[in-house]
Amino acid sequence: MNIALDVMGGDNAPKEIIAGAVDAARVYGVTVSLVGPPDVIRAELADHSTAGLDLPIVPAEQIIEMGEKPVHAVRNKPNSSIVVATKMVRTGDAQAFVTAGNTGAALTAGTLYVGRVRGILRPALVIPFPTLKGFCAVLDIGANADTKPEHMQQFGVMGSIYAQHVMNVERPIVRLLSNGEEVGKGNQLILNAYTLLQRTRSINFQGNVESIEVMEGLADVVVTDGFTGNIFIKTSEGVAKMLQVVMKEELTRGPVSTLGAFLAQSGLRRVRARLDDSQYGGAILLGLKKPVIVTHGRSKANAIRHAIRVAKQAIEQDLSRRIQQGVTESIDLDQTALMPVSN
Amino acid sequence: MNIALDVMGGDNAPKEIIAGAVDAARVYGVTVSLVGPPDVIRAELADHSTAGLDLPIVPAEQIIEMGEKPVHAVRNKPNSSIVVATKMVRTGDAQAFVTAGNTGAALTAGTLYVGRVRGILRPALVIPFPTLKGFCAVLDIGANADTKPEHMQQFGVMGSIYAQHVMNVERPIVRLLSNGEEVGKGNQLILNAYTLLQRTRSINFQGNVESIEVMEGLADVVVTDGFTGNIFIKTSEGVAKMLQVVMKEELTRGPVSTLGAFLAQSGLRRVRARLDDSQYGGAILLGLKKPVIVTHGRSKANAIRHAIRVAKQAIEQDLSRRIQQGVTESIDLDQTALMPVSN
Repeated sequence: MNIALDVMGGDNAPKEIIAGAVDAARVYGVTVSLVGPPDVIRAELADHSTAGLDLPIVPAEQIIEMGEKPVHAVRNKPNSSIVVATKMVRTGDAQAFVTAGNTGAALTAGTLYVGRVRGILRPALVIPFPTLKGFCAVLDIGANADTKPEHMQQFGVMGSIYAQHVMNVERPIVRLLSNGEEVGKGNQLILNAYTLLQRTRSINFQGNVESIEVMEGLADVVVTDGFTGNIFIKTSEGVAKMLQVVMKEELTRGPVSTLGAFLAQSGLRRVRARLDDSQYGGAILLGLKKPVIVTHGRSKANAIRHAIRVAKQAIEQDLSRRIQQGVTESIDLDQTALMPVSN
Repeated sequence: MNIALDVMGGDNAPKEIIAGAVDAARVYGVTVSLVGPPDVIRAELADHSTAGLDLPIVPAEQIIEMGEKPVHAVRNKPNSSIVVATKMVRTGDAQAFVTAGNTGAALTAGTLYVGRVRGILRPALVIPFPTLKGFCAVLDIGANADTKPEHMQQFGVMGSIYAQHVMNVERPIVRLLSNGEEVGKGNQLILNAYTLLQRTRSINFQGNVESIEVMEGLADVVVTDGFTGNIFIKTSEGVAKMLQVVMKEELTRGPVSTLGAFLAQSGLRRVRARLDDSQYGGAILLGLKKPVIVTHGRSKANAIRHAIRVAKQAIEQDLSRRIQQGVTESIDLDQTALMPVSN
């Protein structure tokens, strides 16, 4: 199994990316193709002991920066790590692609070179989001800035398949993120997506859900448009980060609190562990023919290692084929379901 | 000063609403008109000592429930507490209106009976949101499900005036909530709103902001559409609530952690206090001729008391007139600014 890794993507490239690759190759026994400038990669690898690990270097001299316009960048940088790596997946030289780089460029190159599953209108980024009861799948968290109701219907189908086969939920409860749980809540996009999801007999759609209920664990799959989903995820991260700062400030104010915090440190460490998203392994771009994993731009070695683990699992579980199958079945089941609703 | 209070609004009506009114009348020395069914109000007041307090009962026998369709409810329940109270503001019998009830109905009745400030296309709900540096004003957090770019331009102007006169920020930094800070990030609505806000010379617009940066305090005013703003606020609440549950679970696991948490309890109490939104006094519906304050549906007495304080301050600071003035000036300054951009 060969996983192509974008060595130059993300805020901590190349050092942390390569450290994560070395860990993953050792722990999971996979081949990780290091795609990027060979000189840079060789210099970084010199800091690690890599004896017995399969870490081939695949040259790619260009770099797509975080702020670049995706379509333009992919078109104009054919020798970038993102383009070279996705082409490896296209030709079958690699079975999956992992990047912490420009999400839009990964989506563009993934769609262009890996290719969409037949019938899928738009791929969507899905992550496992921690709730009080476990995890729920949230999608789309940012593959699409502008989303149509018929895309969101497919997100419901893909999310349901993901929850079944990756999260092992038998009949996943699918809900639509809205500004109220009642029917009729939402903007026009949500109202139209609601209508389509309700008609989709292959999934267990249970109506709207508010953010607070998502965290209480009332949904296995949360469908949202890519813009709102991105705000949802980043707001969650922001609040968690802010609370850690506030706790540090308040718990070290005065000697008794400080002593208490010291004694409670194993508990506080468990709290931090439950907030740590590096172990979730990043987002899978669902709807492509092969797994494409996009991790956070601030990913360090641990997050990269887990992203490679997720890629390995997606390959083993044949997730893309299951999506293909599920979407075909859902189209067969719901002859009218994919008829567009004007937005 | 007479503030009309919807006694029947919210999950904890009428008990907590009336308790908050009694507190507010005592602490702030204002008249609070209790609008609702007289029998219910009298029964609740019997539990309080109200000697010397000015708490007139204003009969309103109908109740608009939380789940009712706003326009339909306001039209069909002329004797509801929300309609009766907003009509009191219209006639000048009261100077402001406070409710923990159906937000949409409060907006509808407020727009219909209190009336919009001349030039304002859509009122917007604004709240002070806690950041690591203090507070920022976020609007719209849910008055409008479907928002147009020209509405969001006005949210920028109104938010800036609110930050100046309520939060005492001299030249507030206005930013647009998006899925990335770079220019060009966002869905079509955000891109069009960006263009209009950038042209608005009366405000200090500094581009996009991500949720995480909002919490770091990089904006004084955060402009967002009502749907996204609602998701932002509710996600923040949800994460804060979830973390409190997680902390309780983890800090009481094992005797050492439990002792530590006990010693750190004053610090933990300060953390909770910083998360407690009942002291913020709810959201002001900006853009109406008189203050309309909408607090959380789960408001208890303390939140109601603070909402009445916010209403009192808004009256004293003549916030609605300042908005009127500011919008007029901004229209004069930016002759082209209010030209619609197609969305």
